[in-house]
Formats: sequence, C-alpha cells, structure tokens
Amino acid sequence: METTSTPETQEDSADLREEKSFHLSDEEIKDIVGALRQQDADTVNAALTDLSTADTAELLSKIKSEDREELLSMYQEHIDPLIFTDMDAELSRATLSAMPPAQVAQMISELESDDALLLIEPLDPDFRHEVIKKLSAKTRLVLEEGLSFPEDSAGRLMQRELVAIPEFWTVGKTLDYLRAASETLPEDFLNIFIVDPSYHLKGAIPLNRVVRARRSEKIADLKLDETNPIPADMDQEEVAHLFRREDLLSAPVVDENDRLIGVITIDDVIDVIDEEAQEDILRLAGVDQGDLYSAVFTTTGKRFRWLFVNLLTAILASIVISFFDATIEQIVALAVLMPIVASMGGNAGTQAMTVAVRAIATHEISSTNTWRVIWKETLVGTINGAVFAVITGIIAALWFGSTILGIVIATAMIINLIAAGLSGAGIPVLLNKFGSDPAVSSTVLLTTVTDVVGFLSFLGLAAIFMA
Amino acid sequence: METTSTPETQEDSADLREEKSFHLSDEEIKDIVGALRQQDADTVNAALTDLSTADTAELLSKIKSEDREELLSMYQEHIDPLIFTDMDAELSRATLSAMPPAQVAQMISELESDDALLLIEPLDPDFRHEVIKKLSAKTRLVLEEGLSFPEDSAGRLMQRELVAIPEFWTVGKTLDYLRAASETLPEDFLNIFIVDPSYHLKGAIPLNRVVRARRSEKIADLKLDETNPIPADMDQEEVAHLFRREDLLSAPVVDENDRLIGVITIDDVIDVIDEEAQEDILRLAGVDQGDLYSAVFTTTGKRFRWLFVNLLTAILASIVISFFDATIEQIVALAVLMPIVASMGGNAGTQAMTVAVRAIATHEISSTNTWRVIWKETLVGTINGAVFAVITGIIAALWFGSTILGIVIATAMIINLIAAGLSGAGIPVLLNKFGSDPAVSSTVLLTTVTDVVGFLSFLGLAAIFMA
Repeated sequence: METTSTPETQEDSADLREEKSFHLSDEEIKDIVGALRQQDADTVNAALTDLSTADTAELLSKIKSEDREELLSMYQEHIDPLIFTDMDAELSRATLSAMPPAQVAQMISELESDDALLLIEPLDPDFRHEVIKKLSAKTRLVLEEGLSFPEDSAGRLMQRELVAIPEFWTVGKTLDYLRAASETLPEDFLNIFIVDPSYHLKGAIPLNRVVRARRSEKIADLKLDETNPIPADMDQEEVAHLFRREDLLSAPVVDENDRLIGVITIDDVIDVIDEEAQEDILRLAGVDQGDLYSAVFTTTGKRFRWLFVNLLTAILASIVISFFDATIEQIVALAVLMPIVASMGGNAGTQAMTVAVRAIATHEISSTNTWRVIWKETLVGTINGAVFAVITGIIAALWFGSTILGIVIATAMIINLIAAGLSGAGIPVLLNKFGSDPAVSSTVLLTTVTDVVGFLSFLGLAAIFMA
Repeated sequence: METTSTPETQEDSADLREEKSFHLSDEEIKDIVGALRQQDADTVNAALTDLSTADTAELLSKIKSEDREELLSMYQEHIDPLIFTDMDAELSRATLSAMPPAQVAQMISELESDDALLLIEPLDPDFRHEVIKKLSAKTRLVLEEGLSFPEDSAGRLMQRELVAIPEFWTVGKTLDYLRAASETLPEDFLNIFIVDPSYHLKGAIPLNRVVRARRSEKIADLKLDETNPIPADMDQEEVAHLFRREDLLSAPVVDENDRLIGVITIDDVIDVIDEEAQEDILRLAGVDQGDLYSAVFTTTGKRFRWLFVNLLTAILASIVISFFDATIEQIVALAVLMPIVASMGGNAGTQAMTVAVRAIATHEISSTNTWRVIWKETLVGTINGAVFAVITGIIAALWFGSTILGIVIATAMIINLIAAGLSGAGIPVLLNKFGSDPAVSSTVLLTTVTDVVGFLSFLGLAAIFMA
C-alpha cells in the first residue's frame, strides 16, 4: 500500500518500525477510512481482502463508530465472524447489537461451538434471545447447553469436539481411525483421550507419542499422561491457574459423573489469564473491563460510583482535619505540611497493597505465609518511615524555623508509614479471608486508613505539643 | 495425609475446598515443616516423593528461608531441577545462590536448553560465571549461545530442539522418520517445520494434519500453515503480543539470515504474558517483580526511590499551599476542605490513566485513536466534575454556612476533574510517544498535576473571591 509521508507519520516512525510486520499500521487504517468515506468501494474491498481476522478486528477497534457502522453494513461479505472473537468483548457486544439479529444468527451458525458461545455471551439478554430464536434447532441446542454452565466456568471455555478412543486399540488402529474419520474430527487437536465404554477418562497421550510408537503396540501400553480432569463448573480463574501451574497445553473437561464432555486448550485459557491479570489492575483503580470501548455516558456512570465512595473517604478525612481547626488557625504551617504525611502514607500503603493483591491472585499467599508477609510489610514501612521521618523532619524544621514542628511531622510520618505497611498488606488479606475480592475495595479502605491516621497523628501531635 | 483439625484450619476451610485438588494445602505444608524441624526424615521423604514439581515449588515458596535451606541441603535427592523453573525468578535466584556452584551446575546439565537458560538467567553475574565454569563444554556452549541473545528476547525463550523436514518428502516417509528418529526428537512437539536445504522456512504443519493424510501424499501438497517467523532478537513482549493476536500455539524462530534456529511454544509465552500484565500493575505502584520474595532491606531500598520521588511531589503541593497561607489563616475551612479537591482529582485521574496504560500495553491505542481516547477522558472528567461539583458545593456550603465557599469548591472541582481526565489519558500517551514506559512514571506525574491544579484552583479562587 502506497502512502505519503507527512510530518505526523514521521513522528510515528519509531513505533512503526517495531510493529510493521505484525500490526496494521496507522497509515493503512487512515487509507481505508479515507476510501470508506469517499465511498471508494474498490479500494476498501481490496484492502479488506488482504487483512487477517486479527487485522480487521484491530481496524474495527480503532476507527470511529460511524465509520465502523458504515464498514459493517456496506462490506458485510468481508466480515468473517471470527473477527468478533478477536475483539474486546464490550466492543463486540456493542457492534453486534447494532446489527440485525438475523445477520448475527447467520454469523454464529458459521462458527464452532466455543467461538459461537464467545460471541453470544456478552450480548444483552433481550437481544441474545432474539438471535437465538433465529438459529437452527441444532445450533440453538448446543448454545443453550453451553450457556447452561455458570458464567466464567470451564464449561463455557471448553470445545466439545475432541478425539477419544478405547484403551484396547493398537497404535495402528488408532492411526487408521484418524485417517478414516478425518472429516468428523476437530479441525486441530493436540491430544488423544483414552476412555472406557462409559466415557470415563483413562488418560491422554500427545499425538506425537502415538506417531513414534510401533503400529502393533497397544495404546494402553504407551506412556500415558496423567490427566487433570477439570469439572465443568470450575471457575475459569481456577482453570487458568491450573494450566499455569502444571504447564498444560490442554486438559479434559468432565461432567458431574466424571464423563468426558469437552476439552480446553491453552489458547482459550490465554485470554482468561490476560483478563484476570488486567482485572486486578483495573479494579484497583475502579474501572471496568472494556472501559476503553464504552460510550462516554456508560463510562462516566460506572466511574461515578467509585469516585463517590472516594468522596466519602475524603470527607471523612476533612472531618478529622476540622477537629483541629483552632490549631491550624494558630499555626498555618500545619495546613501547608499536612498533605505530605497523608500522601506518603498513601503511596507506601499502595506499594504494600499491590504486592499483596497480586500475591493473593496468584495463590502465592495462603495461611502458611500470611503473617510473614504482613510482618515484612510492617517492617518495610517502619524502616522507610524512619528514613522519611528524618528527611521530612529536617525539611519542615528548616522551612518553618521550628524544631518542634520537625519532630511532630517526623513522628507522624513514622506512625503513618507503619500503619500503611500493616494495612497495605493486611486489608487485602482480610478482604480475601471474608470472601470478597481484595482488588475491588482495598484501595478505598487503605486510603481511608492512611488519610485518617496521617491527619490525626500529625495534627493531633501538633495540638498537644505546639498549641 | 492425616491431619487434625485445629481452630485455625477451620477458618481456612472455605479456601481449601476450592483449592483442594490442585494445590498443596496449608495442612500439608505444616506437616512437612513440622517433620522437617523434628528431623523426621521418613515423613519428609515420603511427603516429598508424592509432590509434583509444581507442588514442591509452592512448598519452597511458602516456607521460611531457614526451613527452605534445611530442606534443600538435607533432601537434595528430591530436588528436581524443574522445580526452579516453576518458581518466581527472584526466589529461584536467591535459593540457587545459597547452594554450591557445583550442585547448581549439576542440576543445569540435567535440563533441556530453554529450561537451563531460565535457571541461569537470573543469577548474579559472578555466581553465574562460577556455575558456567563447572559445566561440560557442550552444555556451556549451548548456554552461552543462548545468553548471547538480548535479555527478554525471542532467542532466550526458544527451544532449540524441533522437527524439520524437506518439502519433497511424502507423508509416509515423514511418519517413518518420526518413528525411526524418535530418540533424537524433542520430548514433545506440536508442529513439523518444512525447510529448504539451507534451512530457510517454507511452512509448518500441525502433526494431526500429517497423520490424517494418505501416506503417498507429498508434504508440499498438504495445506501448510503460513508461519510467522520470529526474529531471534524480537522483544518477548512483542512475541507474547503476536501469540495473543494470531492465536498461535507455536512459532518458528529465525536468525538474521532467516534460517530456522528454534521454536517458541505457547507455554513459554504464557509466563511472559503473565509477567507483562503484572509488570504494569506493579510499576504503577512503584514496586518490583519478585518483591514478595526479596529480603526486607532489598524491598525497603527499592521502594525508597519511588517514595522519595513522591515526597518531592508532595513538597511541591505544599509549596503551592504555602502561597495561600494568609488566606488559610483567615478562612480555616479552606484547610479542612482542600484535600477533597486534590483527592478526587487524583482518583479520577488514576481511572483514566489505568485505562490508557493498559490500552497502550495491549496496542489498543495508536495514533489513529489517540485523540479520541484523550477527548473521551476529558469529557468523562468534565461530566463527573460537574456532578461532583454540585454534590461537594452543597456539602461545603451547608457545612460552613457559606454559599461562596460552595461555589469556589464546586468550580475547583470541575477544573481539577477536567485536568485529571486530560492528563490521566494524556500523560501515558506522551510518555509512550517519547519512548519511555508509561507505567513507570505516569502515577507520579499525574499526582503532581492533580495536586497542584487542585490546591491552586481551590485556594486561588478562594483568595480572589473570599479573602
């Protein structure tokens, strides 16, 4: 694709060099959008034909919503349903919801069961119902069965298509079967599962190990892998953790009677791992998954709640300050310095909290080492508290020419950094203990502690020793 | 393993139910540590024999360092070198460094090349040198070649063992070769690579597709996968992004002459994906990877730097406040209320910043949509600013019986939340533009903006209209 170099594209050349081979470049996007707006169908068609599904998903993610709608309605024939599985779920939901239900149903019926589920899951219940009504009875049945598993469970992630054979088969018979049944097998598979007549799982073997064996050998005599059968109702976070922990590439899924009903492969799990790791960082800041693609008012509304809770925290801190208004009137330096104590506490506490929240998510903290982690954080808070007490004390004493003010802020600093270490590690652990997600409310609780302790200790000590 | 239920274990029962099948339970850990301390070698040996490498890695991660050293020195025969590849890199480094170099060298020589590299990479240069000296010439050569690739590059991740065949072979010949050469092939493999005589890559084919074809078919005539050859010096973050984007299970690695030199499989990449997602959350809070396992003084020192930068920010805010000390002396309510404006700005800004930092990391923001994202964040800040202006204005006016105070805080709130939205999205984007990691310094810069703008607008307006 020919592009002219403008000053703006020059600036981006560093980015582009790195991304060139595997990304859609900003120039390509610009060209396509330009052609789209000029209704230059030939150029758009040519460009879309060249794009992989991942590229098209990226294109749709980055252009304006008007352009997106135009592209989706005018160039339907280029819209491979797989594009939507490559997209952010929120964007996929919004885009699909703007299409006629019949078209969405048509796309879903072209997909394999797990991808179809991925597409239909995020839709609003009413719209989803409309779409399901338009599906063939068979597709509907498979989808509804899939939807019957709890949200975010192994049953939703798994693929139903798999290769299972009885254990008395020989290697030769197995290879002959694979060749003969080729058409009915899943498009790709890594493992062969060995089952008894009632579909209870006996083991699994990677295909490469079957290929290497002699044709006369019995499958049962080969070195089978121990399998980690996953109950269909296991939470996807747990599934991801299991894959990570045991370095699995795929794992069988069983129903409540331990019968083999599906297989989860690692590419399904990667999205979960990514999502779960992102979830924590987003929750700590009070934003939602898919926030980037939400409409302005949706984003505003969702963020409002979190900010409102923070307002209550801030007002609580203000109430603490108001207890000392007489002292502040007398010594205005206190008003100048007080944010330092609170802010240092907040930052030190956030460090401890972030480590604890991640360690809980990755199961690196359990009751065996909880106290050791809390104790370490408290110790770190104490040491850094002492160092910063000296620094801040000297600065304050010199700034306002008052030794006692230096001593007061130094003492408050130590107190608040100890509180920060203790509560930074302790709050997530406690929240987890009581079954609530530590990432959701740790930040607010921690800020409350470090603000209240910070203002109370600094202003309180000042009121006692300086007023 | 028989355990007695104590009150403490009762508390954990909710956790344990969920984790039972795939984790080492806290009771098991307690039992092993108990036996270890009582030098009950039989119990320890029996327990260690039952554990998988992932279990043993978890055990070593969670027990005290004295217990860990005892276990490693007394029960060496149970220490499978793979345990260290399952551990946090920082913990693995610390643990290995406490062992004699000869023992570490012995363990490394038992591993495959990519795992060996994983073990030796995090070691301190001096100790690493000691270990390398003790290796056989052949192992040393392979490792040094691996270490010659840049840190965090594809060359470090890849495995050298792979299956490559010429394109003129038939399916039958390929299968015969796999069976005959079984001993020299990698332990497991997913793909067969097709190369020309000079080892340039022609394509790849999943094993299952070879097995399904007729023996007489030529490999070149089968449906080969397009390969995404990865240059050996590509950054691992980019590798992970490529795997995610294209849903790859494995990808070939090529040298600067486009010759096939290795293969990266998805299980190597999963750790990178996880690490990269964690990196952002940790960097935003100013803590290091491996912080959980660092010694108290190491952690304290590393966190100190971040806190020190934050101290400078806080002092800057204090200087802003000090400009208005006369006004505060006159109207002490300003001191009481001023943290609310700054804190709301900080929180709103953090929301916008977190979304932007993640979107940059996942390549969801590029120059095509940069301005749209910044504009959206500014708009969200404006709307929420207006809403919170009303709420806070009313509260302040009622609390201190002053309408003008209410109007002043309301105006400051809008100004600061607009600044928060604009800089929350704008700062990470700018940092990225200038080639610096947005996760590292966004928080500090953002806090500076929201503190300075918050105090300046609130106190400044008060000085103008109330003093």
